[in-house]
Amino acid sequence: MSDEAVQDFYPDDVAHCYGCGRLNEHGLHIRSVWDGDETVAVLVPRPFHTAIPGYVYGGLLASLVDCHGTGSAALAAYRAAGRDPGTPPPLRFVTASLKVDYLRPTPLGPPLKARGRILEVKPRKVSVDVAVSADGQVCVRGHVVAVLMPENWTPS
Amino acid sequence: MSDEAVQDFYPDDVAHCYGCGRLNEHGLHIRSVWDGDETVAVLVPRPFHTAIPGYVYGGLLASLVDCHGTGSAALAAYRAAGRDPGTPPPLRFVTASLKVDYLRPTPLGPPLKARGRILEVKPRKVSVDVAVSADGQVCVRGHVVAVLMPENWTPS
Repeated sequence: MSDEAVQDFYPDDVAHCYGCGRLNEHGLHIRSVWDGDETVAVLVPRPFHTAIPGYVYGGLLASLVDCHGTGSAALAAYRAAGRDPGTPPPLRFVTASLKVDYLRPTPLGPPLKARGRILEVKPRKVSVDVAVSADGQVCVRGHVVAVLMPENWTPS
Repeated sequence: MSDEAVQDFYPDDVAHCYGCGRLNEHGLHIRSVWDGDETVAVLVPRPFHTAIPGYVYGGLLASLVDCHGTGSAALAAYRAAGRDPGTPPPLRFVTASLKVDYLRPTPLGPPLKARGRILEVKPRKVSVDVAVSADGQVCVRGHVVAVLMPENWTPS
């Protein structure tokens, strides 16, 4: 498994995402890496990321699906282009749509492992399935449609 | 518009949700009220709830859809039962599935207004559409299927 996350290579001006931006000091710092043909991100919830006490907040799980989805999309787009993250031009995807199914309560405590499976890669659109597990059991299944960030989003 | 939120009446042992629990001191404190036949919640993002700088983090928007969806489900279930929140037995819904479509970037700054429309109310399952707007423009559309909290989830 690679230890270089795609988010490590996001340009500074788009690296402030609360979920996965390395420059957001309040954020979750989700990091997405390749593991063979799948992608992986691990997130350790804080004790206050509660739904019902003892279980993980659904919005945090949605955030993990979301950011690991866009990170996986960027990884897949670089691979499809035959390039490594960090080579120009940068590829930064944002979420067009997000679907999350909560299969069972997710226990709060163990690290959450998100595993992405790339379904389709087009130049400006990537679809990813994400499964989130805790203690080896899949608790959440998600689906992300990610699109290449429109140029007019770029901070001035 | 009512100023009593359904979350104000969640029993103490299920009022710690990071998104909407009044007893979670680190949380977002989302509060859902009736406005005629629709439901409303307002959330003011913090400056660090960033996606791309200048825009709101998608995971926060998903959290708002999620918690306002379950809150709206509880409001609708009480109304369908001809009861007010706070009358026994308590009705507490959790999310079975969540769908979020990001229609346009959501500006970071103005309060976010989530408006819920109840689609279907069954004794143990409620479906809700949620539209999130900023500065009067709808930026996000969501759909939540909420189910009555299973009894075996109750904290011991």
